[in-house]
Amino acid sequence: MAADIEYDRYDRIRPIRWTGTALELLDQRQLPFTVEYLSCSSSDDVAAAIHALAVRGAPAIGIAAAWGAVLAARDVDAGDGATAAAEIESALQRLNAARPTAVNLAWALARMRRALAGAGSDWREVLEREARAIETEDLAANRRMGEMGASLIAAGSGVLTHCNTGSLATAGFGTALGVIRAGVAQGRIDKVFAGETRPWMQGSRLTVWELQQDGIDATLIADAAASHLMKSGQVDWVVVGADRICANGDVANKIGTYQLAITARHHGKKFMVAAPSSTVDMDTASGDLIEIEERDPGELLGVSGSRTVAEGIQAWNPVFDVTPAELIDAIVTEKGIVERPDAERMKAVFGA
Amino acid sequence: MAADIEYDRYDRIRPIRWTGTALELLDQRQLPFTVEYLSCSSSDDVAAAIHALAVRGAPAIGIAAAWGAVLAARDVDAGDGATAAAEIESALQRLNAARPTAVNLAWALARMRRALAGAGSDWREVLEREARAIETEDLAANRRMGEMGASLIAAGSGVLTHCNTGSLATAGFGTALGVIRAGVAQGRIDKVFAGETRPWMQGSRLTVWELQQDGIDATLIADAAASHLMKSGQVDWVVVGADRICANGDVANKIGTYQLAITARHHGKKFMVAAPSSTVDMDTASGDLIEIEERDPGELLGVSGSRTVAEGIQAWNPVFDVTPAELIDAIVTEKGIVERPDAERMKAVFGA
Repeated sequence: MAADIEYDRYDRIRPIRWTGTALELLDQRQLPFTVEYLSCSSSDDVAAAIHALAVRGAPAIGIAAAWGAVLAARDVDAGDGATAAAEIESALQRLNAARPTAVNLAWALARMRRALAGAGSDWREVLEREARAIETEDLAANRRMGEMGASLIAAGSGVLTHCNTGSLATAGFGTALGVIRAGVAQGRIDKVFAGETRPWMQGSRLTVWELQQDGIDATLIADAAASHLMKSGQVDWVVVGADRICANGDVANKIGTYQLAITARHHGKKFMVAAPSSTVDMDTASGDLIEIEERDPGELLGVSGSRTVAEGIQAWNPVFDVTPAELIDAIVTEKGIVERPDAERMKAVFGA
Repeated sequence: MAADIEYDRYDRIRPIRWTGTALELLDQRQLPFTVEYLSCSSSDDVAAAIHALAVRGAPAIGIAAAWGAVLAARDVDAGDGATAAAEIESALQRLNAARPTAVNLAWALARMRRALAGAGSDWREVLEREARAIETEDLAANRRMGEMGASLIAAGSGVLTHCNTGSLATAGFGTALGVIRAGVAQGRIDKVFAGETRPWMQGSRLTVWELQQDGIDATLIADAAASHLMKSGQVDWVVVGADRICANGDVANKIGTYQLAITARHHGKKFMVAAPSSTVDMDTASGDLIEIEERDPGELLGVSGSRTVAEGIQAWNPVFDVTPAELIDAIVTEKGIVERPDAERMKAVFGA
């Protein structure tokens, strides 16, 4: 990182805290009005928190699951890592099932399994060290990624983001919001817009709150106003995160991302995906192969507990969509930037 | 209308009722949970109801304003129409200012002024007859328009609509929803989707409720899910209304319409605008000249009175956007269909 840029002042929020005996998760269902940490003392508590969206964002889910594995092993009495691994496997599978689309969840648990497999009698220490490493590596990766992504953005630019990809979704700093934080810190970004992100309103509840905490002005828009905003000339880049990036550069992310990519291309604006390399899934050839999670249609029948729809109405509530690589100008990870992604360029950065 | 198709069974809602001494407006702010008519006994009551969105939809606003003019003249003592017109002009201007973008409002008031100008001592009767004519002509136009629009839709189609353009937005039957009603009645439309339409949730609160009342199944989606829906192949046509149609075929309509047109074109789906010819404004050459109404940013800071955004957050809340003619496959009015609209084709149907 360039030593003369003050990133710390734009990075004050930590959503995941390990106390040594419990995992504390900043309960994102209660934001922005109540800042309260939820204490998880078992791996099933963590799985429930992930499923209920108390913790969300692909990197944060991975980190929480890693600590969940530590909790799963708490009462296990085993002489070596392999024995301990067998003991906690069913708990790990319950963690893995809490959110099907986020590849980081499986990735983090696989890392925990690997660490455990090679460990001897100090397996408990190894397991905790691995969880800590996943967390600190994420923060460092986000700083690096933010700086790389920002380098693509010209001075005086406006950006639009979607959902929440910030400190709240990671160990800190954020992925797409990390790019925006770095861009603001470097004086490249003048204007930040955030879409509300129905149905869960992550943009309204989390993104603008989080940016406000760090002193970054952001303007909220209705998701449906994005095209009108782009036509108005106030946005040069759309910067979003990813839940999964395929081998050909297709990206699964929050519902609405695909629409932003289409309209950015229509208006000649640029479209950037910023995500940790753990989100890259080189085993999935293309976006067509991704199972799209559908959640309870009830999420569309009201907002924040206030019902807006009559009884007996049907709704369709896919939570993710797939943005094809050809609509993406740059995929930014801590391992490097893939411009105009395709299978070949992805392979050059992420291997086979 | 084809005599063998039962349109009445799909057309049961009437949002505007004239009692002879007062105008009753179905209060759309309270739907879908409370069905209550708001009684307006003065033109300023009507202007306030229009401004506060108790009545909404370009045609319904025009009809309400016409009855508002009748109310404005109630206590006027004048020997002829011209004298009465001068007396109520300031009330008409207050009605006209209640919503700046809806061209029907100005159109209906101009019609009322014209009727009055030529009237003698029976001016009061003439005025009331003109308001009644505006209302009944709208219903007849919607039936005709619905049938014409439906004729473009192949059997077995899925459609997506936006905002509310139904019975609630008109004298009855609706514009875009009239096309959908006719298409369902004729067995052409199998599947109806409606976008929520943030920030005011007209899709959630009004459109799916209204279709449910008439026995038409509709599925609600988040506005941001439209592109994913189109990619899934469940939609063949987007059918929307209009607040203003320019001489070159550009269309101003509810925020989010433009985005649907872009994504429909991207997916090779068709895009139809259905609106009464009173919405056509041949004096406005193109959409660039339309003033886009911006409403209170507070509408984005919560939903149905439940706040979702922290204090001190900025929001941008344009209520309309402009869809350029080149993204529109058909403009349907009661006067005829303009396919692939441009200035020349518009002129052929709507004159100079």
